[in-house]
Amino acid sequence: MNTVAIVGVGLIGGSFALALRKAGFQGKIIGVSSPATVQKALALGVIDQAMPLAEAAAAADLVYLSQPISQILGTIDVIDAHVCPGTLITDAGSTKAVICERAAAKIKRGRFVGGHPMAGKESRGVEEAEPDLFRGRPYVLTSGEPKLEAWIERIGARLVILEPVEHDEQVAFVSHLPQLVSTALASVICGGIHDADPAEVAGPAAIDMTRLATSPYIIWRDILETNATSIEVALDLLIMELERLRAELVNPKMALKFENAASAARSLRYFQR
Amino acid sequence: MNTVAIVGVGLIGGSFALALRKAGFQGKIIGVSSPATVQKALALGVIDQAMPLAEAAAAADLVYLSQPISQILGTIDVIDAHVCPGTLITDAGSTKAVICERAAAKIKRGRFVGGHPMAGKESRGVEEAEPDLFRGRPYVLTSGEPKLEAWIERIGARLVILEPVEHDEQVAFVSHLPQLVSTALASVICGGIHDADPAEVAGPAAIDMTRLATSPYIIWRDILETNATSIEVALDLLIMELERLRAELVNPKMALKFENAASAARSLRYFQR
Repeated sequence: MNTVAIVGVGLIGGSFALALRKAGFQGKIIGVSSPATVQKALALGVIDQAMPLAEAAAAADLVYLSQPISQILGTIDVIDAHVCPGTLITDAGSTKAVICERAAAKIKRGRFVGGHPMAGKESRGVEEAEPDLFRGRPYVLTSGEPKLEAWIERIGARLVILEPVEHDEQVAFVSHLPQLVSTALASVICGGIHDADPAEVAGPAAIDMTRLATSPYIIWRDILETNATSIEVALDLLIMELERLRAELVNPKMALKFENAASAARSLRYFQR
Repeated sequence: MNTVAIVGVGLIGGSFALALRKAGFQGKIIGVSSPATVQKALALGVIDQAMPLAEAAAAADLVYLSQPISQILGTIDVIDAHVCPGTLITDAGSTKAVICERAAAKIKRGRFVGGHPMAGKESRGVEEAEPDLFRGRPYVLTSGEPKLEAWIERIGARLVILEPVEHDEQVAFVSHLPQLVSTALASVICGGIHDADPAEVAGPAAIDMTRLATSPYIIWRDILETNATSIEVALDLLIMELERLRAELVNPKMALKFENAASAARSLRYFQR
């Protein structure tokens, strides 16, 4: 692999570039982004060179699409004409079914493998990029691809191979549901306490549980739109569970509820660093 | 203040003892706990001496009740006979109305002021005690008391004075609701994904949002029992908000929902270190 084109040099694209470098990638990293972003990315040493999409695609052995989902779809619509035959194209979009379907229809000369690094933070932009963002985190590919798998391992992420639809069903629970819960919780904490400032009494529980609520909607709009059905299922289950907890607040059954939830939470941590 | 008796030398009681020491308290710290716990607390240097409750209460200028709520109530029932007239008694229970009502009925020779340090972690026990546990966190008193206020300031906590009922209404939102949400979320994430291990794809969102779910029920049983009505109100509002988000997943209105929640979450962080 000699040349990588990062299309969308934000938190994820920038972190992938830095992670590749740290893992020993010696080739050229080209950035495709707005003029303001490429200037920042060049100044930070995240990319070696900036190019328009068509030129970057033609020069690259690996094209990495790390834009918001709707822009990834737009790039997929136009990129195939520009890549050399057989060029590997992957993406970092948070949902996979819509993207992989579009890629199957549009990418014929290139080879597309969907990807989703399960990492991130509330802040955006190439200034926030970190070489270790993916370390210890799951990195989903929608099918096996030896070259990508090798780099995923080298950057310290944990490879998981999942069909696009299966991926979307699972992230509805582990990623999209926690986001919506945090958003709802922040609204209710601040709207539910009258005649008082909840910040005065907010301890670690309120702070940690509303951290995700500060995430930007611009990212979430596309996720909600491309995974609405699975998210509705997850929300329904959560609402039912909250209703059960409400009904049993002072019931001895709550002991079992807490124990089961605690053991579920511990099992979720199995792969954590 | 020459002698402090910590009744219940666990995470909170032990941390209060260490915090007092770090803040320059020169007097004696007596621990009242199970034999196994006082042995650990003595070995860790958290307390200077262990005594039974009656003796400790008689020797202390300040009695600090840091047991689970039901045990605090039991101690309040019996302690008044043992303290010197005017001895200051406070507690660290997570709800205040039931405790303060009981204290008003039972404590006549001593002077009771309810307290609630809004700090903690999922792990329990004196081994987990830290001198800085309260630093930057709210510390609620149910009425002003100059001696206590001075020490709260010295240990780096942020004094908030709240009536017991008002306290309980507010912590239903900032503390008890986040706990139940985390508990429900852990159950749903692990119960909702069939034929797959959610740990495989759990990223930072799932991990952070289910951290509280590992908290022990033994603490929560008493909290739920003594604050059920306020918690039901908070749960109802959250369920309604989740139903609204579900109905508007792909509606442009979500932009405003996310923006409002993000600004609520940021406002909650106003006093954070």
